[in-house]
Amino acid sequence: MLMEKISSPADIKQMDPESLKALADEIRTALIEKISKCGGHLAPNLGFVEATIALHYVFDSPKDKIVYDVSHQSYTHKILTGRAAAFTNPSKYHSVTGYTEPGESEHDHFMVGHTSTSISLALGLATARDIKGETGNVIAVIGDGSLSGGEAFEGLDNASEYAKNFIVIVNDNEMSIAENHGGLYPHLAELRVTQGNCESNYFKALGFDYLYVERGNDIQSLIAALKLVKDSIKPVVVHIHTLKGKGYSFAENSKEGFHWAAPFDVSTGVINWGNGESYSEILGVYLMKKIKADPKVVVIQSAVPASVGFFADRRNDAGKQYIDVGIAEEHAVALASGLAKGGAKPVYSTHSTFIQRAYDQLSQDLCANNNPATLLITMSGADGMNDTTHLCIFDIPMMSNIPNLVYLCPTCVEEAIAMMDYAIDQTEHPIAIRIPNGVTHRSVDFDKDYSELNTFKVDKHGSKVALIALGSYYELAESVAALLSKKGIDATLINPRFATGIDKKTLEELRANHQLVVTLENGVVDGGFGQKIATYYGNSDMRVLVKGLAKEFYDKVPYNELMERNRLTPKQIVEDVLAAMK
Amino acid sequence: MLMEKISSPADIKQMDPESLKALADEIRTALIEKISKCGGHLAPNLGFVEATIALHYVFDSPKDKIVYDVSHQSYTHKILTGRAAAFTNPSKYHSVTGYTEPGESEHDHFMVGHTSTSISLALGLATARDIKGETGNVIAVIGDGSLSGGEAFEGLDNASEYAKNFIVIVNDNEMSIAENHGGLYPHLAELRVTQGNCESNYFKALGFDYLYVERGNDIQSLIAALKLVKDSIKPVVVHIHTLKGKGYSFAENSKEGFHWAAPFDVSTGVINWGNGESYSEILGVYLMKKIKADPKVVVIQSAVPASVGFFADRRNDAGKQYIDVGIAEEHAVALASGLAKGGAKPVYSTHSTFIQRAYDQLSQDLCANNNPATLLITMSGADGMNDTTHLCIFDIPMMSNIPNLVYLCPTCVEEAIAMMDYAIDQTEHPIAIRIPNGVTHRSVDFDKDYSELNTFKVDKHGSKVALIALGSYYELAESVAALLSKKGIDATLINPRFATGIDKKTLEELRANHQLVVTLENGVVDGGFGQKIATYYGNSDMRVLVKGLAKEFYDKVPYNELMERNRLTPKQIVEDVLAAMK
Repeated sequence: MLMEKISSPADIKQMDPESLKALADEIRTALIEKISKCGGHLAPNLGFVEATIALHYVFDSPKDKIVYDVSHQSYTHKILTGRAAAFTNPSKYHSVTGYTEPGESEHDHFMVGHTSTSISLALGLATARDIKGETGNVIAVIGDGSLSGGEAFEGLDNASEYAKNFIVIVNDNEMSIAENHGGLYPHLAELRVTQGNCESNYFKALGFDYLYVERGNDIQSLIAALKLVKDSIKPVVVHIHTLKGKGYSFAENSKEGFHWAAPFDVSTGVINWGNGESYSEILGVYLMKKIKADPKVVVIQSAVPASVGFFADRRNDAGKQYIDVGIAEEHAVALASGLAKGGAKPVYSTHSTFIQRAYDQLSQDLCANNNPATLLITMSGADGMNDTTHLCIFDIPMMSNIPNLVYLCPTCVEEAIAMMDYAIDQTEHPIAIRIPNGVTHRSVDFDKDYSELNTFKVDKHGSKVALIALGSYYELAESVAALLSKKGIDATLINPRFATGIDKKTLEELRANHQLVVTLENGVVDGGFGQKIATYYGNSDMRVLVKGLAKEFYDKVPYNELMERNRLTPKQIVEDVLAAMK
Repeated sequence: MLMEKISSPADIKQMDPESLKALADEIRTALIEKISKCGGHLAPNLGFVEATIALHYVFDSPKDKIVYDVSHQSYTHKILTGRAAAFTNPSKYHSVTGYTEPGESEHDHFMVGHTSTSISLALGLATARDIKGETGNVIAVIGDGSLSGGEAFEGLDNASEYAKNFIVIVNDNEMSIAENHGGLYPHLAELRVTQGNCESNYFKALGFDYLYVERGNDIQSLIAALKLVKDSIKPVVVHIHTLKGKGYSFAENSKEGFHWAAPFDVSTGVINWGNGESYSEILGVYLMKKIKADPKVVVIQSAVPASVGFFADRRNDAGKQYIDVGIAEEHAVALASGLAKGGAKPVYSTHSTFIQRAYDQLSQDLCANNNPATLLITMSGADGMNDTTHLCIFDIPMMSNIPNLVYLCPTCVEEAIAMMDYAIDQTEHPIAIRIPNGVTHRSVDFDKDYSELNTFKVDKHGSKVALIALGSYYELAESVAALLSKKGIDATLINPRFATGIDKKTLEELRANHQLVVTLENGVVDGGFGQKIATYYGNSDMRVLVKGLAKEFYDKVPYNELMERNRLTPKQIVEDVLAAMK
């Protein structure tokens, strides 16, 4: 096997064209095999095999530095830089992450996972090189989808002014995660059709030299083009046309489905998404119902429509009541604010980790204007994605301290629906709803009126200990209450519903017959909900335990271990409660 | 006077060209007169007088909706929409804000103040219009400088795909706040030189129709152009060439100096920036010294170089060790991370209110990678800018809960310098330093070693009450301590230095002979520093009072009133301390 003999990029530099092609075939087979077992970004990696080989053939990493955008397409890069065993040996499948990781290799320069940052990061490396009088090429790799993010534009705009040697590879596979959206994309199509020779040229307008490579999955074409730009003394864009999912027919035919795939059957292409309920499907059904019932409802997505079950059928069915803005969370939030101001009923949804892109727009464009848009913050909590770059545990600190915002945290599906029904039709506040990762149900008649802000619901009146359990940790509190009951403590159980404020009346009432309040939230404690409670009781005899995660960039920590480490198992919480009661 | 007869835009629609021109002259005179007394955005408003008249002459506001980017150029708009008295009658000068404000007029649609958002917000209005089957033009006004912000790109990209009637006025005055930076600007220059007919066209590449107006300060040329695009059924950019500072020679000759001007002498053009020390000058001197001493130091700015005293002379003197990225905070933070990774010593500075644009880049690009860049968060605290859109009181909640970040808060100039000396040369952490608005001095020998994270300094050992005073509220704590002393309480005074963590050892030691800890921070309490202390002591007898501002978008509240409202005067704090001691 050629792959197994590669311990560094130097090992491919002497290969003849046939061997390089054979290597690409091997890599492709290995990628399909591994991802079919472990899940991963299949289609983006399949499309970028040849380009990665060409990059490492022409350039000399790590002296020449390649910075991958999102870095979900960096599997072949890992194979060529000493990490092939992680793709050929099943026992080592988990020895590498799914993104570039400086801790793994000197060929990886940044840990990244969000889009549209490679140009900025690479420009930093290039500028440092020049400041220090060093040499070497700096290459930023970015997909066509990622170009829709504003940070990519900012990077291009700045790079063309400052850089000397600076090479941007635009990997154009005609796709974002789903189809592309934005005026840039008909333009990229025109560039493809004209082999890069149409009149207007986005990249030239921004000051870049420009080279088009139609055969972006042909190693020799790519090598020829990269040799032309190697050691270039001014910024240049190499626009390469690749096929997403290349070489695996099911992925070529279902590029969106195989963008990130759970384990699948290689021979049939059937992906095992797991059984059981998912919030994406629940949200898909719900939002389509709202769209049909009210022509003012507009669902906004930023390039991850599957996260709300908006696959192609629903997207088409929604018509002009569905807007995909591209990977542009900043714009999405401001657009939602404008829609709400104009009297429409916008519902923008994005994962907790991605709303981070829009802090200022939440604050200024939306909340300072107090426009009644609805935001769904999906996948929230520690029990979902666990890559450092995709943690969904920072949204409460980030959002709950922005004035005017109402952040609702449902304890179950039924409450999430009640909250959405309320949020979409009200006209008083910007409302975000924290959609958990896991689906749970409760048979409670939620009343759909959240207009009295920051009112907690006391679901069970007890004494001594009160558990205030936000959103998806309500179930955890129920387990704790059951264990405490066995210890003779009849705990009060409270669903606070709001992460953005406290219910002083309820908190005052607790003083009568409670000595300890325990807050539970599925996210980082610092800056979060429980700290507001602890602060409220700061000048009193009430003891407060704030339970949640310590502030840290956890790196693929299994959920159970994460709970243990943060003393969040029911047993540990009971231990801490009993210790505090002494 | 023509101005005084205008109660709505309808009043200018019958005016002949000479009257319109006379009106423009009147407005210009009034703007110069008012701003010379009150301060304000002089040059941007002077350049946009004619365009505003033409907009209101051709379009029918508020049915046709004009959305101004930043809205610092909206003074003429205010004059033409019933608010002329606020510019002609000194007793009413303060009856309007310096930005658009829906609370003032139905002609204002959003309260804004940060850049690059008008296209997104206006697209929301246009989409709502279409969803509701309404008619009317929607016009986004944006300056050339604001085009460097990624959100503007995202808005353009999305608008060209979705919009029907959608008009973008690009007000090209060849300037950002200082000179423009980025590859886009030579391109705009080419468009100007060719009267919009050069080969590549940024706006056409993104899918817009395009119209160029060279005489952007000529009302009749503008009216003719706007009539061409009125009721346009597809997105169009009208690129108008204006003169920043038009009609006031001192402003025409010093566009940067008069971008925002303090009160000035009309006849001499001398601006009264006030006497006394300013952090901008202190930082300018300091950063130039660092640049000269170490070729690896790179100062990054995002279009507000005066905020660190980098006027043209220093910019030139710094050479390639100074980078202005344009209004692109996201890119700036990622660039700084890349520079630090590459071994340079980047120092990026921006105002507290503007760092909000880069939450995700702080978290992902910088802190998850733990690269040792230095950030200066300037103008921080409640004692500086007090427009809702420019509050500098949210940076502690936003930044102090991001893992790996070290947020240092100096109590005085000398400590700020010690912290900067440490931050720039260390290689362990991303470090932000909270630069206050007001300049104070202390004669303490700060030791420049902050490597032991989250270690507080106990400056004065007392008993019963401990004051933990973060950064610029140290002085306030000194006043409180002096008053407490008169009441017989010898308070402990602590400079915590770090906003991103707590010193458990010091906090434990306080238990021995203290019953109350008071935290003081110059910003919003929710999610901030004091809440970490309150949480730490939650399960103990220690009482904690967390002092700072309640979470709110304060709207031009005078500083003294803000302090009173939040019980932050020394007298009030002492009252609260004494009450808590009972």
